Parts: sequence; C-alpha cells; structure tokens
Amino acid sequence: MLSDRLTKLLGVRYPVIQGGMAWVSDACLAAAVSNAGGLGVIAGGSADADTVRAEIRRLRTLCDRPFGLNIMLMSDHAGDLARLAIEEKVPVVITGAGSPSRFMGGWKEAGLLILPVVPSASLARRMEKLGADAIIAEGGESGGHIGEMNTMALIPQVADAVDIPVVAAGGVADGRGLAAALMLGADGVQCGTCFLVADECGIHDNYKDMIIAARDTGTVVTGRSGQGHPVRQLKNPMTRRFLEMEKRGASERELEEFVLGSLRLATQQGDREHGSFMAGQIAGLVKGRAGAKEIIEGMVQQARLLLGE
Amino acid sequence: MLSDRLTKLLGVRYPVIQGGMAWVSDACLAAAVSNAGGLGVIAGGSADADTVRAEIRRLRTLCDRPFGLNIMLMSDHAGDLARLAIEEKVPVVITGAGSPSRFMGGWKEAGLLILPVVPSASLARRMEKLGADAIIAEGGESGGHIGEMNTMALIPQVADAVDIPVVAAGGVADGRGLAAALMLGADGVQCGTCFLVADECGIHDNYKDMIIAARDTGTVVTGRSGQGHPVRQLKNPMTRRFLEMEKRGASERELEEFVLGSLRLATQQGDREHGSFMAGQIAGLVKGRAGAKEIIEGMVQQARLLLGE
Repeated sequence: MLSDRLTKLLGVRYPVIQGGMAWVSDACLAAAVSNAGGLGVIAGGSADADTVRAEIRRLRTLCDRPFGLNIMLMSDHAGDLARLAIEEKVPVVITGAGSPSRFMGGWKEAGLLILPVVPSASLARRMEKLGADAIIAEGGESGGHIGEMNTMALIPQVADAVDIPVVAAGGVADGRGLAAALMLGADGVQCGTCFLVADECGIHDNYKDMIIAARDTGTVVTGRSGQGHPVRQLKNPMTRRFLEMEKRGASERELEEFVLGSLRLATQQGDREHGSFMAGQIAGLVKGRAGAKEIIEGMVQQARLLLGE
Repeated sequence: MLSDRLTKLLGVRYPVIQGGMAWVSDACLAAAVSNAGGLGVIAGGSADADTVRAEIRRLRTLCDRPFGLNIMLMSDHAGDLARLAIEEKVPVVITGAGSPSRFMGGWKEAGLLILPVVPSASLARRMEKLGADAIIAEGGESGGHIGEMNTMALIPQVADAVDIPVVAAGGVADGRGLAAALMLGADGVQCGTCFLVADECGIHDNYKDMIIAARDTGTVVTGRSGQGHPVRQLKNPMTRRFLEMEKRGASERELEEFVLGSLRLATQQGDREHGSFMAGQIAGLVKGRAGAKEIIEGMVQQARLLLGE
C-alpha cells in the first residue's frame, strides 16, 4: 500500500519530505533527512542567493542524495533563487506562497523536479497543467502560513483532481498520519513540526522544549483579519498581543512592524515572549527529541504495521 | 482493521454515525441510516420536547434498530430533551455545544450510551472521566458549529488521551476518509455532509443541488470575530453579507438578528440568497444523490478495499 510513485519520482527510499521552514531548514537538517532516506529540503525563506548557495554547497559536503530547495515566491529574492536552483542543479524545487508559473519553463528545461505547495484542488489542477511533477497539498493544521482547507478534506479532492503524485502536508507527525494520508489518496507526506525537534535541527532549545510541551490546542492562527496572511504558531505572549492588535483593528503595517524579526527571535534566541514559534496542530503529538533517522524510520515502520505490510 | 469496538458498543453493523443536524436529521433520515446498518441520529436542535418525542416515536414506526438523539446543550430545551431521552429510552445520546456533565448521572442510571462531541483531547479526557461511553472528536472541516482543531491532528491526539472508542468527525464522506480515520486511531466516523444528499433526507432540493455543485473551497466560516460561534457553511450572498458585517464590527446582537431563521430558510425553503446552508469542506467530494444504504455500503466497501480486507 505504500505507494512507490513518489519515491521513484524523487529517487528516495521513503515517501517523507521534510518541510522547508524559514530560519529552520538548513543544510544540516536537510542532509540528515536525505541521508535517512527521506527528502531533505533547504528553505530559501527570505534569504538572498549567496546565502542559499552556501547552504546548498554545505549540504553537498554532508550528503550525496536527492534534496530539495523551498522557494517562497513572495520573497524579494525569489527570482534569484529560481536561477540559483538551475545553476546549482538542485534536484527538487518546492514552491510556496504563490504561483511559480513564470519559473517553471526554465526549471523543466533544466530537468529539475517541481513540487508546488497548494491549498486547493483547483490550484493543484492548474499546477499539473503547467508541468508540476507532483503536488504538495497542505491543510490548515500546518505550522506557518496556512490556507483555508484542512488536510482530511483537501487530500482526497486533490487526489481526484490530478494524475501526478500527491503529497499530504499538515497534521502528520507519526505513522498513523502517514498511513491516513495514503488512505486519503496521497503518495507521501511532507512534515515540518516533527522535524523541529530533530537532533540535527539547529533551532534554539527553548523552541524544541515548547514543541514538546505543547498540547493539541497549543497553537493559534494570527493574521486572519484584514488582508492578513494567516499564520499558525504556538500560543505565547507575542501571539496574544498580536491578536489583541488585530481585534482593535490595527493596520497591516502596524502588524507587520510588530512581528518584524520575530521568527529569528524564536529560532535563534528562543525568546519565549517575543518570538514567533511556528508549529502545526500536531505539535501536541511530538513528545521528545530524536534523530532524523529515528523520526522517519519510526514513522514508516508504524505506517507499515498499520497497513499490514 | 475495521475495529469492532464501536459497532459492538452501539449494536450496529457499520462504524458510521449520521451526524445530528438541526432542521435536517429527522426520523426519516435517521431510520434510513439505522436500517442501513449505521447509527441514525435525530437532531434535537432548538426544538421542544414534544416535537422531538414525536420524531422519536415516528422513527420507531420506521425502524427497530439502535439510533441516537443529538442534544445541543445550548438549546433552551436541553434539560427537557435530557429527560425525554430517559423517558423514551433512547439508546444513544450524543451531545454537542457544551459539557453534558449535569445530565450524565441520570443517563447512565437509565442505561443510555453517551457520546459527547468534543473539539480537543483535554475535553475528551474529561468526558471519559465523567463516564462517556465513546468520544466523537470533531475537526474544523465539519459543517455547522466548529472548533479550532482539524481532524488529521485531532484524532490521534484524542486516541492517545482516552481508552474508550473514538469516532472521527469532520472531512469524511467516502471510504478513503473512513479508512484514514481508522488509521489515525478512530474506531469509526460520524458524517453529516454526505447524508444531506441522501434520498431519505427531507431538505429542500436547492440545498442538495448546492452540495453537489460545491467545490472544495465552497465553504466559509462565519462568526470567527468577537465571542462569535464559528459556523461553516456554503458560500452564498448571506455569508458574504455576514462577513462584511463582522468586518465592520457589527454587534453580536446585530449578527444574531441577521441570521435569525436562516437555517430554516435553507432547509425548508431552499432560499439560496438568505439561507444558511451548513456543510463541511468535504462537500466538494459529494457528487450525486443516493440512498442512505448506498452511501454507507459504498463507504464501507471502499474502506475495506483500501485496508486490504
């Protein structure tokens, strides 16, 4: 039942992709995941091309397996990173926060695999038409920027909408989630939250402790008001203040200024008061630290057991 | 892999509960579902005890199998319906929109099975301690009143939190959803949206047509602002106006008055402009009408096939 469409496409052992998380997913984490048989992914985030190039080259010193680069299309450097992916022959490009249509011709010509992250069946269909090699369908239980659809309802509708492999993202942190995603019609999963606590993940210890301490209802969505971009993160004094500001009708600019640098404060400083600790609703299931290999193999073994393989 | 904990507990053939939907789930629909081997449920909604008693007795003329009564605890008549359940020896009581603790002693004494609907692991644990026989954990992809947690992340966390059977609600309309719910650790599912189009469901044809025409992104959540109670429903002129009113800071009272009677307008009149057409995100998967038996058996057969039984 463990489909091999995705693993064959990507050239990896397990159908588990590590989500590209800005300020989190560096060469070290991505290499650990790829070495463990999943697909490790470097997050471009808002970094410039030189920074990301250095990460890609560092990863190649740690690992000679396939890996991905996540390009956030809203970044000022998206165009540079799109070119960089070709120059560096990055095996897999994953895109988020917009449509990668303007870059897809170049990537396809260069032979890169393209996996756009989408929040709906109609966008999945559009990406398939433009030449995407697989679709990552992400539900609103995810950490970070989220859409309106939830994983359980989204995956079967995306699976019905496209013929290319579908990767389920949002709400998966163990073998139960992987097995459920496969039942829903996905060919694999993309996980973020459970890799935050990986030994090879370089974020501040406070962040890891907060994930491990989180309960199921430990996250909240900010930015649902106005034109805001909804973001799921762990509840803390920062999110409380942000929500109060939203409630009293603070301007987009005021809100943007308020969170400026908050992701770095979370990942680098572990500032529990002011940091933005992005995490999915599945954080409540993550109970302890482990190596990337243990996380992936535990997930796959549990799924196989559940699926009776 | 199809667990028998829930079916044994309820005395039904299939682990499929039909959700209690106000103004929708009457004797006729509930009897059809119970006769088909699931658990049919009459919705108490905001109706008084005499009205609900008549429905229960009507159901008993149509069906001699186990069935449930859904008691919405926010209703003015909740206390009356709680007594009614005992007087009429309703086999299964399902509660929503609050804690049923004040009624549970009486129900247990009378030998009724109690299945509270909960939105979190901590509430599931509390309900188990109070004597619940099973837990219905409902994710935010559901139609109607919703919580913050989504099914994919909620179910495994509830399954870890309690020892009694767990029913997954939210995002399930076919065998993929049922199989996925079982993988996540549930013992069965509760479905609402897919039964809206059942031949035995007496809602207006326009409502059924709107479900069948809906795409994955066809629903929207109103009432997220203020102390509001978030409600998922099909997008229509009514929801657009409601969201505009919320945006400009309309009072709770103003909003309440605006939606007064809108549920009846949807279910009875099929008023596409002014009605509140509650539905889950899985509406996009529901492509045509069918009898309750066909819906349930199709779901179970597909799940069995997926699970390799």
